[in-house]
Parts: sequence; structure tokens; C-alpha cells
Amino acid sequence: MHNMDKLYESVAKRGHVCVGLDTSPEYIPEAERSRAATDADAVFAFNKAIIDSTIDIAACFKVQIAYYEELGLSGLQTFSKTLKYIRERGALVISDIKRGDIADTASRYAKAHFEGDFETDFVTLSPFLGMDSLEPWLNRADNKGKGAFVLLRTSNTGREDFQCLKTAEGRQVYNLIGDKMSALASAKPGKTGYGAFGVVVGIDSKSEEERREAMAIRSERPNLFFLIPGYGAQGGAAADVSLLLREGNGGVVNASRSILRAWQASGKTDNADNSIAAKHARDAAIAMRDEILDNLR
Amino acid sequence: MHNMDKLYESVAKRGHVCVGLDTSPEYIPEAERSRAATDADAVFAFNKAIIDSTIDIAACFKVQIAYYEELGLSGLQTFSKTLKYIRERGALVISDIKRGDIADTASRYAKAHFEGDFETDFVTLSPFLGMDSLEPWLNRADNKGKGAFVLLRTSNTGREDFQCLKTAEGRQVYNLIGDKMSALASAKPGKTGYGAFGVVVGIDSKSEEERREAMAIRSERPNLFFLIPGYGAQGGAAADVSLLLREGNGGVVNASRSILRAWQASGKTDNADNSIAAKHARDAAIAMRDEILDNLR
Repeated sequence: MHNMDKLYESVAKRGHVCVGLDTSPEYIPEAERSRAATDADAVFAFNKAIIDSTIDIAACFKVQIAYYEELGLSGLQTFSKTLKYIRERGALVISDIKRGDIADTASRYAKAHFEGDFETDFVTLSPFLGMDSLEPWLNRADNKGKGAFVLLRTSNTGREDFQCLKTAEGRQVYNLIGDKMSALASAKPGKTGYGAFGVVVGIDSKSEEERREAMAIRSERPNLFFLIPGYGAQGGAAADVSLLLREGNGGVVNASRSILRAWQASGKTDNADNSIAAKHARDAAIAMRDEILDNLR
Repeated sequence: MHNMDKLYESVAKRGHVCVGLDTSPEYIPEAERSRAATDADAVFAFNKAIIDSTIDIAACFKVQIAYYEELGLSGLQTFSKTLKYIRERGALVISDIKRGDIADTASRYAKAHFEGDFETDFVTLSPFLGMDSLEPWLNRADNKGKGAFVLLRTSNTGREDFQCLKTAEGRQVYNLIGDKMSALASAKPGKTGYGAFGVVVGIDSKSEEERREAMAIRSERPNLFFLIPGYGAQGGAAADVSLLLREGNGGVVNASRSILRAWQASGKTDNADNSIAAKHARDAAIAMRDEILDNLR
């Protein structure tokens, strides 16, 4: 049983919400931030409060390393502590690192993120360098039941530049990535039928054509688990999410700012502290979970 | 004057060698490694010796973050110290981080690597998410004269999977990336005519066709500075490098293992220490520099 099987079970039990801990110090109540010795400490205390308040609702957590790297070495210490805390509490965590490099280097990265200070359950990877750049990750994941999400089609407009280019054979680049990822998953399906490596597929609800594309991606990739960004602050909606799920499972939906900043959005920010922020985060996560469940096809 | 102008001048003065500090603890003489308190400390001491011994020969240095991340938090401290040491000595450094993420996240990454603990002169970037993912880097680079190298065509065989796909209009994906990077450089050329953002173009000498492709890439991209990996341990040769240079400049050629491990390749590893390793590294860097200069077209 690999981590993608565990994620499937978590979704069945808790719903589809992936709580994104893309925590900027600006999202933290001022009283807490000024009390902490460093911004990195403030981020860890805030993360802990959010994790504790959403752990029974979250299918998993996702930690975007850029927000920690921005704070330098102390930020990366908080990244490490956040991963450890989530895993100690028995929840699953995705390190959003979008690594993509040649094989020798990829093997170093795989060691860095599948064991040691930065050990995680899943990573995100970029396929731009080709399938040989994923192999060291696959090899090392296999030993430890780890998983990954490979970028397939993101939700930003820039995806048109390369991911969505039409190739000479008339298909888009992301379809070819999907073919290769499907083949990997078919060769080694988990207990639930999904491969240990899934893909990142963004939500978009801009046109009917995009809705058809989303449905096509889902039906063509029955054995790939989806990490779905773009919900909430990025503009995705529950009805669009449903197009990317399969029999009510097969995907987790990431939301970060709409959960972390729910206390700020409430307007009642006077005397706010982490426990108030955590309460709002919990409410936002529950609302999102229910909205997705209500919209399941 | 931005950093790419400075790199041009450094190449004119010192040649084309980019010393790659992809330092694994296994590359360090055993006596030094066992003397150091941690592997991360051993890596820093080794790097310092290599930097000191090649600083008058290296056009610049490149630090591949994966090798540091592999050692966890203490490794990233060594990464930070290595960048600082190179910059304090007045040399230019490329952080090989191949970041690529949506705009909000990219802006965090840009802050992380253009200031603070991980401040560098150049980064490497992946264009997979599209041009909007590069904008925050461009904006932040501009203020501080920083530069970047965007992946265009790498030297691994997996590049065929996506980078070299033929699009419906009959060109390869990497050509479209090149078009966009050329346009950016033309809009804001530096003092030497090169844009602040160049591209990564691997060496390959497998066939006559690949040689023609390399020459085409160079002639179509007169205002893009090239970071050229694949020399030495990865198999590239000086004659192939010459195809990617322009009027004897316009590119730096990275070599890592062939320089860092020259002392091991010498066979005389008994009683080796960092000063012996540094001496071999210097000799290897000089040989490489001269080999490239001798092969200039």
C-alpha cells in the first residue's frame, strides 16, 4: 500500500480538501507575529494552529516551499518542522517543490525529500526535462511507498505557452505527458487502482471548451490521482472540481489563502490571535469540503 | 550594467569555464571529511579550497542546490555560505535551482534567491508553466541587475520527450521558448547586447544533425547568453562548445565532476587533502579553459 492508496482512503473519509500551508507572515495576526522571536517562528506557530484545527477535515496538507525559502534558512527550518508536525499527527503531506532536473541531480533531490530533514509523503515534480528525470524519483519512492504529482496542466494562463501547444500529431503537449504517466501507473497500480505518481491538473471554468477538456482529461486518466490547484483565491469552483473527480474520489483540491486568510476576510481582525485564525480556517475548510461534496456528479 | 554584461566581461578575461560546485561528500578527501564536524562543514571547506584555486580561471561558479538539499538544513547553510563566499571574493555565481511556478509563488522564490540568505547573481529557471511564471523574476531581477538562465534544450536524452516535440506549425517546443526569450532580450539589451536572461543549451555531439541544430540555435539567438552544461563527465567536447559560442563569447561551459574529482581521477589519492584536490581542480580547469580556447572557430 503506497501513499496514494492512503490518500484515496483519506479522501473517502474526510473529503477532498488539501489545506495549503503557503503561509506568508502577512497572513498571521499581528499580536502573534510581534510576540514571536522571528517571522519563521511565527509561521510555525500559525501553521500548527491551522493543522490542529483542520486535521479531521483535511484529506492532506500541502506545503509550498517558496514561502519558506523566502524567509531564508530559518524559514526552511520551519518548513522542516511543519512537515514533521503533520506527519507526527498522522496526516499526509505534499511538499510542493516542482523539482525537475537531470537524473544524477534528481536522485539527490529524491533523497533530500523522501528522507531526512525534509522527509515528506508526496512531492510535486516538473516533467520538462523528460521522463528520464523522473526515474530516480520513481526508484526511491518505490522503496518507501512515497508518491508524487507531476505537472500536467496548470491553472495559470501561461499554460497556453508550452503545456497546451498542439504537437505535429494534433494533440497537446500535456496529453503526451498524460500518456507517459498513465503508462507508469498501469505498470504498477496500487491497491486502489491508482499509481503512486499522479498529476497536477488545474481548475478552469472560463469556457465550455475548457469544461470539455477537463472531462476528457479525467476520463482518459482513470488511474491517475489528481492534485487540483486553483480553488478559492485562484477562482476555481466546486462544479468544475467535480469534472476532475472519478466516482467521487481520485483527486484532492488545494486551497491556501481562502483558508489561511479566512480570519482576515471576516473583517473582524481586532484582537485576532492564532486560535481565532484557526477557527475561521476550520469553518472555511468545512464550507469548502461541503461545497465540493454537494457538487459531486 | 547587469550581471550578464559582467559575465561577458569575465569570459573575455578568463575564458568560458563555469566551475560547478555540485559537491557530494564522496568527492572530498577522506582525511578532510573525517576531520570535519559534519558533512556539510566538509563540503564548505572543500568548496572554499576549490573556489580559491580556480577563481582566476573561472568565468563564474555554479552551485547546484540539490547537492546541498540532500544534506538537509545544514547542507542549505553550506549552500548559503558558499554563495556568500564566492560573492565576497568578487566572482559571479549561478544558483542552479530550476524553479518554475505560478506568479505569486515565483515572486516568493525571486525574493528568496535575489536577496537574503540565498542571494545570488543568476538563477536557472524552468519555463514549463509559461511566460507569466517568469515575470516576477524579471521584475525583481531588473532592480538589482540580476540575471537568469531559462531551460531551452538540455543535454539529457529525455529532452526528446517534451522540449524537442514538433509542434503543429512544424517547429520544436524549444524554438518557441527561444522566440520568447529572444523577444525579452531585444526589448532590453544590456551594454554588451545580451539580455539579462539567457538560456540553458546542452552540448551534444551524437550526430551531424545535432551539430546543425546547435549551430542553428546559436545563429537564431544572437542576444541570448548560453549556460552550457554537459562538458566533461557528461560527455561534451570542446569542438561542440564552439558551435554554441558567438564571436568567442556569449556562453559559459559548466563542468563539475571533471574538476571536483580530478584528484580522484589522478589515481594518487593516498594522503590527499583539500589542497591537493584544489591543485588538481585548478589543473583540470586550466586544461578545459585552454581546450575550449584552442577550439574556438
